[in-house]
Amino acid sequence: MQQILCTVDVVLLTLQDDMLKVALLRRDREPFKGVAALPGGFIRQQDDADTRDAALRVLRDKTAIEPPYLEQLATFSGPARDPRGWSVSVVYYALVPFDVIDSAGHPDVKLVGVDKPVGLPFDHRLIIDTAVARLRSKSQYSSLPCYLAGETFTLPQLQRVYEALMGEALNKVSFRRKMTEMDMLEPVEGAFSAGGAHRPAQLYRLKPELRDRLTLIERGL
Amino acid sequence: MQQILCTVDVVLLTLQDDMLKVALLRRDREPFKGVAALPGGFIRQQDDADTRDAALRVLRDKTAIEPPYLEQLATFSGPARDPRGWSVSVVYYALVPFDVIDSAGHPDVKLVGVDKPVGLPFDHRLIIDTAVARLRSKSQYSSLPCYLAGETFTLPQLQRVYEALMGEALNKVSFRRKMTEMDMLEPVEGAFSAGGAHRPAQLYRLKPELRDRLTLIERGL
Repeated sequence: MQQILCTVDVVLLTLQDDMLKVALLRRDREPFKGVAALPGGFIRQQDDADTRDAALRVLRDKTAIEPPYLEQLATFSGPARDPRGWSVSVVYYALVPFDVIDSAGHPDVKLVGVDKPVGLPFDHRLIIDTAVARLRSKSQYSSLPCYLAGETFTLPQLQRVYEALMGEALNKVSFRRKMTEMDMLEPVEGAFSAGGAHRPAQLYRLKPELRDRLTLIERGL
Repeated sequence: MQQILCTVDVVLLTLQDDMLKVALLRRDREPFKGVAALPGGFIRQQDDADTRDAALRVLRDKTAIEPPYLEQLATFSGPARDPRGWSVSVVYYALVPFDVIDSAGHPDVKLVGVDKPVGLPFDHRLIIDTAVARLRSKSQYSSLPCYLAGETFTLPQLQRVYEALMGEALNKVSFRRKMTEMDMLEPVEGAFSAGGAHRPAQLYRLKPELRDRLTLIERGL
């Protein structure tokens, strides 16, 4: 009996110029050698404490990125998704502010609009679509988008992130009320945005205790 | 290199007397032979089209139940959760009306209040807690509870199911408005509940096209 292939794949998502993008890498081995694909790899029993640990290792090794937010998306499986045989891939999605990817500056990492990539190997097209759908729906009732907004941000900047993910304009007053309700942000002492045309705006950040814990909005945005 | 163990487990949930219960079976083999546990088993490459298919096979073989609703919960993994070695278990949760379990009448299936079972093998306690949390949170903004209400139900019966899952009383008027908004129910022609003390109430069912598709509530209940 041939062994079931056990892998992890990561959908690394970021916002660049208000556009949702996914990180792809050219595969360095068969199958699909040279083809752009999601970062992934086999589970290593001797190295990995669990599949989450495997996903973080893969990201570290292949993209040099430590994601501020990583969540299990779903597990994809079957005899046909991988030409090597019956496979189970436990997929995680990571949210990473663009500047973090930029400063990691890994040469192999390509950021592509989530709807763009065609001819992806395996079932990576389905996996990306599943991750984007999860992110968009969760954005409506959680703090999830904050993880794409960077270390610090103004409320207008955060609102634009929510709007970019939800694909709709939000009412400024009710958006701010929701943010207050969620009680997840704290002002950064005496830190203000260089206002540009506008007057400087207070900078905020996620409360430290919420860095790795999602906050849910009572009734949605 | 030892092979990674690939299994599926199913958290089969039902409501009995407004109490959320989980189906347990005594294990017929080692490890933990004779101990009550979630129905589960190894993925069979030759039989299973994917892990969902494996979960349905396990339920069929071990409980004789075809669940009206089955969703992937999460994948649990690591070197310690199964004494046989590094394992990956893709876990599904199933919602089944009590009368379906009752009429299947499988002698080995025991229904236990979800908070009750102690001394569960593997990480089944954590798995059950994860499934219950998912069900309770999804009940607030989806049609999920309908799958526990049976083939047909009155609106008061459906409201009690929502209340049992959410653990709070709901306002009758706003509950009915939400149900109308969701547009997921249809009256059963000329079918009414035997009213008992009350006058007979119209019976409803999920619209056929929604039987296997979750409907989301715009702003939550």
